[in-house]
Amino acid sequence: MKVINGGVTAAQGFQAAGIAAGIKKGNAKDMAMIYSTVPCRAAGTFTTNIVKAAPVKWDQQIVYHAPAAQAVVCNSGIANACTGEEGYSYCKKTAQTAAAILGIPEDSVLVASTGVIGKQLPMDILEAGVKKMVPLLSETEAAGTLAAESIMTTDTVKKEIAVETEINGKKVTIGGMCKGSGMIHPNMCTMLGFLTTDVNISKELLQEALSDNVKDTYNMVSVDGDTSTNDTVLLLANGQAGNKEITEKNEDYSKFTEALGYVNTWLSKHIAADGEGATALFEVKVIHAESKEQAVTLSKSIITSNLTKAAIFGHDANWGRILCAMGYSGAKFDPEKVDLYFESAAGKLKIIEDGVATGYSEEEATKILSEKEVTAIADIKMGEAQAAAWGCDLTYDYVKINADYRS
Amino acid sequence: MKVINGGVTAAQGFQAAGIAAGIKKGNAKDMAMIYSTVPCRAAGTFTTNIVKAAPVKWDQQIVYHAPAAQAVVCNSGIANACTGEEGYSYCKKTAQTAAAILGIPEDSVLVASTGVIGKQLPMDILEAGVKKMVPLLSETEAAGTLAAESIMTTDTVKKEIAVETEINGKKVTIGGMCKGSGMIHPNMCTMLGFLTTDVNISKELLQEALSDNVKDTYNMVSVDGDTSTNDTVLLLANGQAGNKEITEKNEDYSKFTEALGYVNTWLSKHIAADGEGATALFEVKVIHAESKEQAVTLSKSIITSNLTKAAIFGHDANWGRILCAMGYSGAKFDPEKVDLYFESAAGKLKIIEDGVATGYSEEEATKILSEKEVTAIADIKMGEAQAAAWGCDLTYDYVKINADYRS
Repeated sequence: MKVINGGVTAAQGFQAAGIAAGIKKGNAKDMAMIYSTVPCRAAGTFTTNIVKAAPVKWDQQIVYHAPAAQAVVCNSGIANACTGEEGYSYCKKTAQTAAAILGIPEDSVLVASTGVIGKQLPMDILEAGVKKMVPLLSETEAAGTLAAESIMTTDTVKKEIAVETEINGKKVTIGGMCKGSGMIHPNMCTMLGFLTTDVNISKELLQEALSDNVKDTYNMVSVDGDTSTNDTVLLLANGQAGNKEITEKNEDYSKFTEALGYVNTWLSKHIAADGEGATALFEVKVIHAESKEQAVTLSKSIITSNLTKAAIFGHDANWGRILCAMGYSGAKFDPEKVDLYFESAAGKLKIIEDGVATGYSEEEATKILSEKEVTAIADIKMGEAQAAAWGCDLTYDYVKINADYRS
Repeated sequence: MKVINGGVTAAQGFQAAGIAAGIKKGNAKDMAMIYSTVPCRAAGTFTTNIVKAAPVKWDQQIVYHAPAAQAVVCNSGIANACTGEEGYSYCKKTAQTAAAILGIPEDSVLVASTGVIGKQLPMDILEAGVKKMVPLLSETEAAGTLAAESIMTTDTVKKEIAVETEINGKKVTIGGMCKGSGMIHPNMCTMLGFLTTDVNISKELLQEALSDNVKDTYNMVSVDGDTSTNDTVLLLANGQAGNKEITEKNEDYSKFTEALGYVNTWLSKHIAADGEGATALFEVKVIHAESKEQAVTLSKSIITSNLTKAAIFGHDANWGRILCAMGYSGAKFDPEKVDLYFESAAGKLKIIEDGVATGYSEEEATKILSEKEVTAIADIKMGEAQAAAWGCDLTYDYVKINADYRS
């Protein structure tokens, strides 16, 4: 497996477009489209929030019941959440408009929205946007990048990646893009992620591969503890790689899930690193846990602790807050057996041993914590399971961005 | 029942002292003592964090097993948490020192600590502090205030209150003080709260009254979602009011719990209002819930949402974040039936009706949200239960305080 240039247009048969349709102020890009020249098998994971945005409901119908998917229309600026029946009718209208121009069935068009909750979409602008994007659809790398830029809200950088692997003698490509930044605490998946691949795989295994992998990637990210109403990850597979269809969990399936895992992990870490106001990616590893579940609970409790996040912003080795966050997580462990390390490009330091400070150098700890990516490793000495979670520091800018997000 | 001046020295037979012993820098007050002239029945509630500070373990032994309690020694500046056996030995040593001078049993001296986690207490300073405080013990209001000031860490105001009621023809007084500000998300009780009363009540009912009431008061407060290692509420009753001992849940018990509830609610709201960096008290009421548990889950989910807290700081009626926080709380409800109001001294406004925006005036909403105390009321139209929770806004100063708390 190797990483290649590109994003959602990297896999064979996928095209994309991204434009400034006029939903956002100031001519910012706000609409994207992904299109496959042939029908795809679709997998998806969606928010567990009871308050589900209209596009989530629309896409669930398609992923769970429609025979195929062939296009995705996404807008940023307005989330189309808490918009009632009117909001849902706009999803249908958007899909109808795209389907008519593209000459594909209405129920093969997925839609996604991200932005302010509670506002209705300007349907005239959205329809005009769809009509404008279809002639711009292109399989170039640049077209994929335009799409990745068009789904951003408070993101400061686009997030796209592509990898290539060989399955059954054929080159298989997976490309992906996502957006993150705020209201990021995915419970079944992240804010918005779009993955395209030319692999030939059964719909059942495609969904299983995605659902399994999401648990270790997007679900291990938290920027602010708020699970969004719009969380959606979509994975489209059009089979253009020409490999023999994957229908069981054999070596081919392993190669595919390995590549998929790489893409999702990369995107997840980049969502965390670009969390609203973030100055650092904060990675937490819990090792030697009794069970995976225990390691997940502990690592997520640490990355969501406001006090810990503020200490990371201050480059302060305030390990008491980490132990405290482990203690209230609900997972059982012996605090008096915990070893804790901080690690970054500047080195690795053991901060506590068996629950008590080691007498480490504060100066050295601060140096390690001043890097752009810092890792805390908690060794709880109970077994062989482990987990990693990704978050970011809590900064003045997080408060600033969210105190006046709507204005 | 009426509110009177004073705090922990208001009830008959209680004395207090507060001094700058030298644990904190810059001659700040950092040690407090409460003493009853006669032995008390003691009730307590403690943190549910697995990582329990040494004083929590010491106090649990006394509240659950010792025949009586007569004094409390509290220090601020260092939490004596994550300090191993050495830390626990300092609790014993502190109690021994106080017991010897006061002429009372060692197991009648409760201890409490708050401040930085992981540092050992300077035992020489602590012992000298105890010796200095005993001669200063006084039943004056000023002595109670000194004690309330000495337990503060990042608190900006002292928190003390006293109320008077009549039980069985006798005047009964309850006084209390507490500290809060950061690492505040009590799970069985709050950071540190000390209550004194001269009521005559059985130990069993004293504990039951406290445990019941804590659920509706301290446990409904959150500043930052972080459940502390040191949470402790202690309630000492010395019987000096001379009322007939309360041994059953009769009218006398109701009068006592009503007064206790007033004290705890007042202290809880003041912890929230003085949350680290806070500019506003944020109260959330969930009404017409199916069950108390559901109302509690929903209201706590809203007050702990970073995005909602940042919007309150920005005086922004970003109701989508409130509905979103309800949606991921785990409680079941119908988002399309929810009405939401904002209320403050500046007025009351219906923001959403049946899950959709009412077309309210943003200007009026901002005016309401610009007050020092703001309330959000969510009517979920399912039943007759309700709950209230208290938090605060998320501000630049919260980040500032916690990015460099230890320096």
